Amino acid sequence: MSLLDDTLAAIVAPDAAARAAAADRLDRMTKPPGSLGRIEDLAVTLCGIAGACPPPPPDPAVVVVCAGDHGVHAQGVTPWPQEVTAQMVANFAAGGAVVNAFARAADVQVRVLDVGVAVPLPDLDGVLARRVADGTADLTLGPALTRAQVVAAVEAGIAAVPASGCVLTGDMGIANTTAAALLICAFTGADPERATGRGTGVDDATLARKTAVVRDALARHRPDPADPLGVLAAFGGLEHAAIAGLVLGAAARRIPVLLDGVSAGAAALVAAALAPQAVGYCVAGHRSAEPGHRLALGHLGLDPLLDLGMRLGEGTGAVLALPLLRAAAQALHDVATFGDAGVTDAAHEPV
Amino acid sequence: MSLLDDTLAAIVAPDAAARAAAADRLDRMTKPPGSLGRIEDLAVTLCGIAGACPPPPPDPAVVVVCAGDHGVHAQGVTPWPQEVTAQMVANFAAGGAVVNAFARAADVQVRVLDVGVAVPLPDLDGVLARRVADGTADLTLGPALTRAQVVAAVEAGIAAVPASGCVLTGDMGIANTTAAALLICAFTGADPERATGRGTGVDDATLARKTAVVRDALARHRPDPADPLGVLAAFGGLEHAAIAGLVLGAAARRIPVLLDGVSAGAAALVAAALAPQAVGYCVAGHRSAEPGHRLALGHLGLDPLLDLGMRLGEGTGAVLALPLLRAAAQALHDVATFGDAGVTDAAHEPV
Repeated sequence: MSLLDDTLAAIVAPDAAARAAAADRLDRMTKPPGSLGRIEDLAVTLCGIAGACPPPPPDPAVVVVCAGDHGVHAQGVTPWPQEVTAQMVANFAAGGAVVNAFARAADVQVRVLDVGVAVPLPDLDGVLARRVADGTADLTLGPALTRAQVVAAVEAGIAAVPASGCVLTGDMGIANTTAAALLICAFTGADPERATGRGTGVDDATLARKTAVVRDALARHRPDPADPLGVLAAFGGLEHAAIAGLVLGAAARRIPVLLDGVSAGAAALVAAALAPQAVGYCVAGHRSAEPGHRLALGHLGLDPLLDLGMRLGEGTGAVLALPLLRAAAQALHDVATFGDAGVTDAAHEPV
Repeated sequence: MSLLDDTLAAIVAPDAAARAAAADRLDRMTKPPGSLGRIEDLAVTLCGIAGACPPPPPDPAVVVVCAGDHGVHAQGVTPWPQEVTAQMVANFAAGGAVVNAFARAADVQVRVLDVGVAVPLPDLDGVLARRVADGTADLTLGPALTRAQVVAAVEAGIAAVPASGCVLTGDMGIANTTAAALLICAFTGADPERATGRGTGVDDATLARKTAVVRDALARHRPDPADPLGVLAAFGGLEHAAIAGLVLGAAARRIPVLLDGVSAGAAALVAAALAPQAVGYCVAGHRSAEPGHRLALGHLGLDPLLDLGMRLGEGTGAVLALPLLRAAAQALHDVATFGDAGVTDAAHEPV
């Protein structure tokens, strides 16, 4: 058995008994029933994931920034030069990117997983060198990846999942919203016009070119959503494959995976197609401004915790959402029940 | 001059130069322009508040849970007995309430400010005994408070503001969403049906009774929004007066005040009527499920950071939002510029 096969075989549904225990506990805590809104849903989810109520805290928390380049960059889908992927990996290693600042503020570790940057990189602190290819091939000319490359990148993601705590997904890859749009179209059946967005903020002409690339590639590759590894081979990217591995690995280890933006949403669609139960281990950190993200989350049945108009990637939206997981877990640990605290419970008594 | 007069006199507009410096810095950081969405607005706000770019971190962070009781409780506006206010103060002191758990998870200090609980309380750790009255009078029979009581409660709030860092507002007071609805109607002109909500989750009959109380009290007291202390005297509560003091005190000290839910929104309307510039020091932590909160925030021109369907109070929504302020401040401190990091800046160059 391969690491991927073993991982898929280990994924089971979240624990229903732990979920029920959480719901019961929430109802006896010193607060009006339901008054924590979505934090109560989140608390129930965390218990189901861990199979325990209260759940362990989501720590240590590690954001794994999966980095890769894209052959489709040659088609002019972004104004940013491809070299920026490698430059930003160096920036992550030096601690100077936004994800580093957010992670420092939230006590989250940052690890970079190089699964496919196009150019050579020196040894860098905090960068796991697991390169599968020097970027993907141009998907307008043929498949972006071989199946073997896809499996290697997914397995690199699985291997990067910590043994406990929480894994947060991050991504870096110039042109990767083009691949994300393709994955989202392939798994949701959405029209390219609806799934393709401005990414880093491209102008109208570039958006039109990008949308045409997506439309033509769908027509050329005719992706089969029942063959998720084949879809990844058609379109890439290596970082999306690695993020799918993070999702699968977290589900197999029964820890939460906190999803960032559109790249994570696209990758989670792949993971869900491989192992539908893996979705139960996903928490959507935020809603990206990228339109395809909404389609991906809707297909997965996930509702994001934050909606701040962000569109950076790197894992920044996931890092910002982590404190909400900590709060939900802490509440189940610490909050007194009406009986314990000697507080009169109007909600469960005749008035 | 009184503490209130001194405080009002000290409030000036946020610093425009520091805001401009923040916007410039954000534009040179290693990220596409605008890609952090509302976190960029928040970063600019924090710089304007502090008069410095980068701004100091919002720490130490202290949530001040202002507690008071309400004579209008006698009108059957809630199924919860009045004694629950005092019971919950004891629960806060023991560390067993939701706000304690959330604060522990987010490294926030909890202080309780008793400005008007109805029954005697023993000395409790972390509870500031600044009681102005044993609850308000029944506003359906006459004014809830005297002007002197209002000023004393506002000044208790001002005095509870820390010298630096960030103050978060919290509230505890059975029946206090009735007073909040009245304040919101008085300052926004909203209809009682739109401003009155279910609070802790009251049933239809109680909601109808509560709405009638609000409608009749508006007709009886004819509040004048140009006389904010008079409005507070008419309706209370003491905790709303204290929270207004937190807002004014934070503005005078030039630190951010992170608002919780509907009680904070109602109190901020009072503060804004006393000192319009104080709104510039407010950050809305979350949108409460209580309908009047939306009206209050709209009137203040504030857009909440979180929207999680919460309706507990205690400061819980403010505490959950604090990590976003930390992230925004940290980004301005830590993130490299394109020039410093050697990253190619496509957004500011011809492609």
